[in-house]
Amino acid sequence: MKVTIAQINTTNGDIDGNTSRIISAIEEARQQGSDLVVFPELVTHGYTSQDWFQDRDIVERSQDPLQRIIPATKGISAVVGTIRPNPDNDGRRIYNSAAVISDGKLLGYVDKTLLPEYDVFDDPRWFEPNQKERQLFEINGCKVGVVVCEDFWNDKTFWKDRLYETDPADEVIDMGAELVVSINASPYNKGKIKLRCDMVAHRAKANKVPIVFVNLIGGNDGIIFDGASLIADEEGDIILQAAAFSEFVETVEIDCRKPDARGITGSEPSAIHDALVLGIRDYARKNGFERAVLGLSGGIDSTLVAALAAEALGPENLLCVMMPSPFSSEGSVTDSEDLIRNLGCEGRTEPISSAFEVLIDQLNLRKPTKGGESIAAENLQSRLRGVILMAISNAEGRLLLSTGNKSELAVGYCTLYGDTNGGLAVLGDLLKTEVWAVAREFNERAGREIIPNRIIDKKPSAELAPNQFDQDSLPPYELMDPVLELYFEQKLSPKEIVAAGHDPELVYGVLNKVEHPANEFKRQQLPPTLIVSRNAIGVGRRRPITHKYRRTMTAG
Amino acid sequence: MKVTIAQINTTNGDIDGNTSRIISAIEEARQQGSDLVVFPELVTHGYTSQDWFQDRDIVERSQDPLQRIIPATKGISAVVGTIRPNPDNDGRRIYNSAAVISDGKLLGYVDKTLLPEYDVFDDPRWFEPNQKERQLFEINGCKVGVVVCEDFWNDKTFWKDRLYETDPADEVIDMGAELVVSINASPYNKGKIKLRCDMVAHRAKANKVPIVFVNLIGGNDGIIFDGASLIADEEGDIILQAAAFSEFVETVEIDCRKPDARGITGSEPSAIHDALVLGIRDYARKNGFERAVLGLSGGIDSTLVAALAAEALGPENLLCVMMPSPFSSEGSVTDSEDLIRNLGCEGRTEPISSAFEVLIDQLNLRKPTKGGESIAAENLQSRLRGVILMAISNAEGRLLLSTGNKSELAVGYCTLYGDTNGGLAVLGDLLKTEVWAVAREFNERAGREIIPNRIIDKKPSAELAPNQFDQDSLPPYELMDPVLELYFEQKLSPKEIVAAGHDPELVYGVLNKVEHPANEFKRQQLPPTLIVSRNAIGVGRRRPITHKYRRTMTAG
Repeated sequence: MKVTIAQINTTNGDIDGNTSRIISAIEEARQQGSDLVVFPELVTHGYTSQDWFQDRDIVERSQDPLQRIIPATKGISAVVGTIRPNPDNDGRRIYNSAAVISDGKLLGYVDKTLLPEYDVFDDPRWFEPNQKERQLFEINGCKVGVVVCEDFWNDKTFWKDRLYETDPADEVIDMGAELVVSINASPYNKGKIKLRCDMVAHRAKANKVPIVFVNLIGGNDGIIFDGASLIADEEGDIILQAAAFSEFVETVEIDCRKPDARGITGSEPSAIHDALVLGIRDYARKNGFERAVLGLSGGIDSTLVAALAAEALGPENLLCVMMPSPFSSEGSVTDSEDLIRNLGCEGRTEPISSAFEVLIDQLNLRKPTKGGESIAAENLQSRLRGVILMAISNAEGRLLLSTGNKSELAVGYCTLYGDTNGGLAVLGDLLKTEVWAVAREFNERAGREIIPNRIIDKKPSAELAPNQFDQDSLPPYELMDPVLELYFEQKLSPKEIVAAGHDPELVYGVLNKVEHPANEFKRQQLPPTLIVSRNAIGVGRRRPITHKYRRTMTAG
Repeated sequence: MKVTIAQINTTNGDIDGNTSRIISAIEEARQQGSDLVVFPELVTHGYTSQDWFQDRDIVERSQDPLQRIIPATKGISAVVGTIRPNPDNDGRRIYNSAAVISDGKLLGYVDKTLLPEYDVFDDPRWFEPNQKERQLFEINGCKVGVVVCEDFWNDKTFWKDRLYETDPADEVIDMGAELVVSINASPYNKGKIKLRCDMVAHRAKANKVPIVFVNLIGGNDGIIFDGASLIADEEGDIILQAAAFSEFVETVEIDCRKPDARGITGSEPSAIHDALVLGIRDYARKNGFERAVLGLSGGIDSTLVAALAAEALGPENLLCVMMPSPFSSEGSVTDSEDLIRNLGCEGRTEPISSAFEVLIDQLNLRKPTKGGESIAAENLQSRLRGVILMAISNAEGRLLLSTGNKSELAVGYCTLYGDTNGGLAVLGDLLKTEVWAVAREFNERAGREIIPNRIIDKKPSAELAPNQFDQDSLPPYELMDPVLELYFEQKLSPKEIVAAGHDPELVYGVLNKVEHPANEFKRQQLPPTLIVSRNAIGVGRRRPITHKYRRTMTAG
C-alpha cells in the first residue's frame, strides 16, 4: 500500500481555505499513485482555535468541510482531522476526531480519547472524550487502526511517567491493526523531532506494525508546529521523514524497506532558526502584515531578530529604527549600521534625547548615574522607544517585533510598555546563551559574517545609565542560563538544581526573582512568544501574579 | 448540631498565614459553641495557585498545614479544603480534597471528582479526579456527606444542560447523608449569589436534607470570590446567609428553623461596587502596595475608578493625575478637580503638550483633525499619558490602575501601551452602561453627589482629536451594550442575537470588531481584569490572535 504524508499549514477559522488545501493535497497524492493520504489533527478548523470550538455557529456548521472533501476522494482513501458534533445533551458539544474516508464515502469517525491538559494544551475545555468502542478500518485490504494525537503518546514501554492509564494505540494494535495511523498537532520544541522518531520507531518495532505519524506544520501565534511527520515500517525503520518547518506532501510504499531521513537536518540551533523564521512569517502572513519594524539597539537580541525577520519577510520589508540616548555607546550605532548594510534592510535614526529631556524635567525624575537609583528615568528611555516604534507601526501599518530574550523576561530585566512592546516576541523563549548560539549559526549557514561578530562578542548592556552592564544587576548568563534551563525545561526544584551542582545562593536568588509577583505581572502583559522549549513563558506557564510562595534555602 | 461557616480570605502560597487564619477561625467557632466548622475549597494553599500546584516542593510539603490544623481541633470537627498527594505513579500528582477532621484526628479525605475546565477554571490541569468509593463521616452522631465544589454543581433536577453524567452530591444523599457539606471556591459574577441560594435551597428541599455550603472570599488577581456562604435546612429555608465580600465566621444550630438572610443586600450594581472595592483592596494588599495612581480624564471611567480606589485604599493613598492635551475640553479639568475635592485624594497636573509637540514634529506625524486619519498621533497622546503614569508609578512605588471599560476593550476602542497600562484593570469587565449604573449607585450609597453628575451625564469622548466623540466611530452604547451582553454573558450566536430583536448590521458589525485579530491582539496584553460577569475578557475567554473566523450575515 502507498501512503501519503499530507503535512499542510492551516489557519484557524479559514475553513474554506483549509478545505481547499486539503482537497489539493488529495489531488497531489492521487497523482503520486497513493492509496491513503493522511492529514494532521483538526486541519479543517485549525488546532489552535481555542474557544472558537465553543461557538454555536462553528459547531452547527462543523460538517461543511467534509461535504466538500468526501466527494474529492474518488479512488483514494483519506484520514482527516476535524470536529464532530456530540449528539448528546450532556458534556462538551464536539469531539476532536479523525474522519476516515474512502472512495467518496465516510467510513467513520475516530474520536480522541486522551485529552491533554498541560503546557499549552487545554483539550478538555472544548472536546468530549471518546466513549465509543474502537474499530479498525479496511483500506486496500489492510486493517488500519486510527488514533488522534495524545492517544498515541501513552506507550507504557516508552514513557517513564504517564498521565493516563489507557493506551488507545495499544488497543488498536491488540485488535489486529496491520497499519497504525496517528494524526497529530505536536508543537516544536528542542529535541522534539528526535523524540517523536524514537517514540514512533519504538512502537513500530516492538509491535511489528508500520506506523504513519503525520504532524501539523505552521506558526499560530506563539505555537509553532514543525511537521517532521514520519512513517516507520514494521522493523522500526523510518521509510519516510518529512521536512521540518515546511509543507510536505509525499508518498511512499509501506513495504519499500528503504530508510529515508530527508527531514532531519542540522543542529538544534539550526532547528530553532527555522522555527523562528516560520513563526515570524506565519504570524505576519496569516494576519495580513507585509512589513515589520523593530528597534535596533546594537545588542545581540535585536540584531538576531532583525536577521531572522529579514529572512522571513524579505529585507525590503523590514525597517530597523536606531534610537540612541545620551547613554548609548558609539559602537551601538555603528554596529547597527553595519548590520543594516549586511541585511540590505531599511534603517532610520530617531534619537529619544529631546523627548527624554522634556519629560525628565517635567516629572522631576532623578537622572541615571552609574549604579544609582534611577529606575523611573531608566524605564522612561525604554518606554519612549516603545512609543516611537508604536507610532511608526501605527502610521505605516508595520508589525512591531519585540526582541527580549527568555533570560531577561524570566528575571524581569525588561521594561513593560517599553522594550516588551510588540505584536510578537521573537526570542521570548530563548535563553541569552541560546541567542548567541543561534546568531553564530546564522552566520555559519550564510557562510559569511552577516551578524557582525563584534555584536555577538560585546558585553551585554541595556545602556539606560552610564556604563551600565547586565551583570551589574544579574549573575553572568553563563551561570544563570543553566539554572533557568533546569527550572523551566526539566521542571526541577531548587533543591534538585543545587544537587546538580549549582551554587545555592545563585539558584535561590534567581528563582525568587523569576517567581516574584512583580515579574509575573510583567510577563502577563507580554505579546505572544514564539515557543521553542518545553515550558515557555506565557501560554505554557500559568501562574497567578498575586502569591506568597517563596523559596528558602532551609525550607527547600 | 451547631455548624460554623468559616468564610475566610486566603492568599496563594501564604501557607503559614492561611494555616494560622484557619486555626484562629476554629478557635472562634469553638467559642461560639460549634460542633463542626466548615472552610472553603483549597484554603491551605489558595485556590488560584495555578501551576504552583505542579511544583515538586509544594506537593512534597503539602501535608504541613494539616500537621498544625489537626491538633487544633480538640473537641470540635472541621472540614478543610486542601491538597492531597496522589500516591500512584500515573496521573496528576495531587487531589483537590476536603480533609475531614474531628477531635484531633483526621477521619479521612474526600477528593474532588468533577474537575471544571471552562471559563476561568482549569482543574484537570493540576488535579487527579477522585477514584475512591464515597463514604459518610460520623460527626456528633450525624452522618455527614462531604463534596468539593463542582461535585455539588451537577444536580440534574436543577440544571438544563450538564457537563457531566454523575452527581456526587446525589450519591452521598443516596447513601443516607443526614447533612451535606459542600466546600467551594465559586467566583462572583452578576446574579451568582441568588443562583447559589436557589441551587442549595432546591437540593435541600427536594431531598429533605440540610446543606452547609461554604464559599471562599477574597480577590486574587482578576478573580473575586464573594463568599455569601449559606446553610439551608431540610425545608430548604436558608437559616444562615453569610455576608458577601467580607470574611464571616458564624455558627448556627441546624434545627433552629429561623431563616436568616443577612448576606443578601442591595441591588446588582451594589454587589458590583463591593466586588470591585474588594478586588482593588486585595490586589494592592496582597502584593504589598499601599498607594495607587491613575490618570483622571474627566470621563466617567477614570472617575469611577478613582472613587472606588479611594474607598478601597483610603483617599490619602490615591494620586489622580490630570494630563490635558490641546484637545482636552475645559470641563475635563474642572470636573476632575471637583471630583478630587469630593474624594479628598491628591491631584496633580502633568500636561502632555510639550512631549507631544516634540515627538509629533520629530516623527512627522499627521496632526489630529476632526474626522481625520491620524491614528498614530491620537495613540501617541494616550501613550505619553501611559509613560507619565508609569514614571510616577516607578518613582513613587504606586500601583497604576487602568480604567478602560469592557465595551471599549471589546471593540478595541483603546490604546495599547497607553490607557490600557496598569497593574489592574478595574472596569475591564463592566459594560459602559454598567459603569454609569455603578457610578449612580456610588452617589446613592454615599447619600451625596461625590461623583459630579456632570461627569455621569456628559457625552463620552476620548478627546484625542478636536471635537471627537465615541459615537463618531462606535454605535451608541445603549444599542451596543445589550448586544455585547448577549454575546459575552449568554454566549448567543449572532443569529440568535438578531432574533432577539437587534439590528443585524449592528450585531455583525460589532461582533466582527470584537473578534478581529487586531483587537484580540490588544486584549492579550491587558493587565488582569476584575471579573464580574460570566465571560470576562482575559482569563475566562481564550481565543487565538491569528484566525480567519468571520461572521457574515448570510452564513449566519
